[in-house]
Amino acid sequence: MTPSSAVADTDAAELERVLTAAYGSTARLAASPPTERAGWLTAVADTLDAASNRLLPLAAQESHLTEARLASELARTTFQLRLFGDTLREGSFLQATIDHPDPAWPMGPRPDLRRTLRPIGPVAVYAASNFPFAFSVAGGDTAAAIAAGAPVVVKGSPGHPGLSQLTAELVGRSLSNAGAPDGAFALVLGFEIGRTLVQDPRIAAASFTGSLAGGRALYDLAVSRDHPIPFYGELGSVNPAFVTPAAASARAEEVGAGFLASVSLGVGQFCTKPGFLFVPESSTIPTIVKRLSADYPPAPMLNDHISQGYVERLVRLTGHPAVRRITGDIADGSQQALTMLQTSTAELLADPHELMVECFGPTAIIVTYANEDELLAAAEAFDGQLTASIQGEQEDTVGRSLVELLTPVVGRLLWNGWPTGVSVTYAMQHGGPYPATTAAGFTSVGTTSIERFLRPVSYQGVPNSLLPPEVRDGNPWQIPQRVDGVLRLPS
Amino acid sequence: MTPSSAVADTDAAELERVLTAAYGSTARLAASPPTERAGWLTAVADTLDAASNRLLPLAAQESHLTEARLASELARTTFQLRLFGDTLREGSFLQATIDHPDPAWPMGPRPDLRRTLRPIGPVAVYAASNFPFAFSVAGGDTAAAIAAGAPVVVKGSPGHPGLSQLTAELVGRSLSNAGAPDGAFALVLGFEIGRTLVQDPRIAAASFTGSLAGGRALYDLAVSRDHPIPFYGELGSVNPAFVTPAAASARAEEVGAGFLASVSLGVGQFCTKPGFLFVPESSTIPTIVKRLSADYPPAPMLNDHISQGYVERLVRLTGHPAVRRITGDIADGSQQALTMLQTSTAELLADPHELMVECFGPTAIIVTYANEDELLAAAEAFDGQLTASIQGEQEDTVGRSLVELLTPVVGRLLWNGWPTGVSVTYAMQHGGPYPATTAAGFTSVGTTSIERFLRPVSYQGVPNSLLPPEVRDGNPWQIPQRVDGVLRLPS
Repeated sequence: MTPSSAVADTDAAELERVLTAAYGSTARLAASPPTERAGWLTAVADTLDAASNRLLPLAAQESHLTEARLASELARTTFQLRLFGDTLREGSFLQATIDHPDPAWPMGPRPDLRRTLRPIGPVAVYAASNFPFAFSVAGGDTAAAIAAGAPVVVKGSPGHPGLSQLTAELVGRSLSNAGAPDGAFALVLGFEIGRTLVQDPRIAAASFTGSLAGGRALYDLAVSRDHPIPFYGELGSVNPAFVTPAAASARAEEVGAGFLASVSLGVGQFCTKPGFLFVPESSTIPTIVKRLSADYPPAPMLNDHISQGYVERLVRLTGHPAVRRITGDIADGSQQALTMLQTSTAELLADPHELMVECFGPTAIIVTYANEDELLAAAEAFDGQLTASIQGEQEDTVGRSLVELLTPVVGRLLWNGWPTGVSVTYAMQHGGPYPATTAAGFTSVGTTSIERFLRPVSYQGVPNSLLPPEVRDGNPWQIPQRVDGVLRLPS
Repeated sequence: MTPSSAVADTDAAELERVLTAAYGSTARLAASPPTERAGWLTAVADTLDAASNRLLPLAAQESHLTEARLASELARTTFQLRLFGDTLREGSFLQATIDHPDPAWPMGPRPDLRRTLRPIGPVAVYAASNFPFAFSVAGGDTAAAIAAGAPVVVKGSPGHPGLSQLTAELVGRSLSNAGAPDGAFALVLGFEIGRTLVQDPRIAAASFTGSLAGGRALYDLAVSRDHPIPFYGELGSVNPAFVTPAAASARAEEVGAGFLASVSLGVGQFCTKPGFLFVPESSTIPTIVKRLSADYPPAPMLNDHISQGYVERLVRLTGHPAVRRITGDIADGSQQALTMLQTSTAELLADPHELMVECFGPTAIIVTYANEDELLAAAEAFDGQLTASIQGEQEDTVGRSLVELLTPVVGRLLWNGWPTGVSVTYAMQHGGPYPATTAAGFTSVGTTSIERFLRPVSYQGVPNSLLPPEVRDGNPWQIPQRVDGVLRLPS
């Protein structure tokens, strides 16, 4: 089947074949040295980069995103694969820990103990529609799971089935050519297949990026299994941004422009889109936003399903008595205009269930506050978030209070920045308390996202030759090790 | 109420007061420097050690365990509190990571990002009955949560309510004297209170040590909440031990004696009790075990409830046509004899649901195998385990296969050791795939058990003065930091 033809759902026989192969590859993958897996990931990255002239037009056709945006997303995706290669070579991710026997250990003689992290087993990856590369078939979850040494079964997004299939062919072939075992990677398609997948006893963990309703439904299946599994779901976030009185006075134009640029990025179809901007009642920011909005022409959304969901939610929001429209029209067709709304903090807090809800698309609500007490009350009112942002000035006394109030709510807190454009780095945290994610202790972006697919094992008294190399005496892989409580770097 | 009087369940009003205080202390605890919390833990340890003459007789009276055993458990408990103090001072547990801005970052300019681990919020700790100190009110979960900076509400075990209350009084008073905020610690009692606790929106995580049925019921409540929370449950394990043909020939007497000592420890009431011993058909080990069993007199179990549960399970096991009794009688009263059973691998694998089940008490099954293929088939047949043990010799070829087959199933793999007596160290892993635990990625013993009660947060572009000290420039706490991808130790 070529990518441009209609793409059928995976049938039950094919799913069974995929799961058998994935499960069958578990031990071989677990036995592969991390440096070997680094080579596989680099091979996949090289293959995808070389195929950009085939991948980008197909992605643009299926997602309606611009080729420029998609090119930068593909660059991010292949960078991500290579960065995991670096992580694998550096070796800290194993948290290798060696306790030598200690007869004088205060609670009683200490045995020889060696702890390392081992791959968790086959992972089901549920791809997102809004990042056809970075959160899809060869995206962060796949990269992290393969890096961890876990087989991957991707459940592709219905939004870009042709691209999913082409990407899977390229990934599968380059993994195979690089020496990865058969079964290490596969793509399946179909709604019901996705439900079957998370319940299969051979699947040991699942990751998901998508809607609250869809993610919660899969989470409920994962935790209701006879043997429950970890479900790393990124579900929803409204990413509030708070402008202090000082920042609103000093930088109204800059704040208004930055906010609009962030809201409109990817036609508002980012999980980190700032959905709320809190400004002082007297601020000129709403007027500035109204003026600058004219620079943003209507643009097509990812697909009709998403466009319809956006319009339904937006109609409901604009029909709410507390909400005024600053700019934008609701279109019937697939092109959607940037639509800026306004309310007050008192009105927002009076109906949080109706108003403090994600609206996936090019819209946001500017919320005026009467004083700093109202600003702080608003900061305390939000549920778990991927991000919150503060626009502040050095002399702000309210800045410290905002940092303190928002830290327990978020995965990432920004100061004078906007939350879209999640960088792939060592210190990135993309995750947050529920409903932002179902596993706030983990990130789905950045090098530490590999932790989701690892599990600790300790070896007690096991002879050196039978130990995994990372916890052998002599440190054969030359990685960081904690030895008798002391963290040591390779010489 | 004095500890020796009858202890009543916590009522709803008191639970509400406890939860309000715990939740109210969250921010103050989170703001406390780790070195300050190290001081609190040391103060608790000193207080408990000083009160041993009050604690030990009460523990012996309520648990029927010997004072010698309880004294060593108390020593372990206070050592554990102090070891977390060391962990807090060393600082690696924060995983402090700093990415400086990098305009040349391959996927696009990198912002300033700082990632650290923050306390998760109020933790419900469900105490176990079989370790009145080490897995109870002031046990590992409480120590790890306070170390993480999270308030603790302990749901005490019904097995030792007086000891629980005395311990809680001592812990609460020493925390308070050491400067910990009000609300940082509390004890509640009662079965229904335990169900209410895990569902309360102010509780952010729960840890549990106990039975599969009880743990699964609480897990189901935790994951069914409107906002699900992590549930770290340690539920059950049969801890199989495998004797290779070479080891059975070389060390039959030693293996038999070591096995019996491990099975009988704490009257078999350890979650790490080795429940199965696989030996060659021709081995003398069953005969040796029968002879040495005479050295173990009957002993009282923790309480009537546990003794009844043990007898019911044992009657069912001994009534199974595949099971022969080597030694031991089933008593009606509270004193239970060491009861050793025997079956064959073929018989065991023919009825795993009935036979491969935890029997909490002083019994175990010796399983004979016909050849190495049967031995390896048995190793593959077990569900998730806290531990598995291998008795092997250097020349064993089957040893490597056993290590490979057992690693994916267990949290800890022992070579020529017995799994009881879990040491508190840096490299300990006490946890394993379901049903051993509900969260195989974590441990409930050892310094890394603190990870259960922490959650990552990244700060993007936040001024140095508003950052947590551990991710500030200049490394004010002098802890390990990963800076621009490179792990650095304090100078």
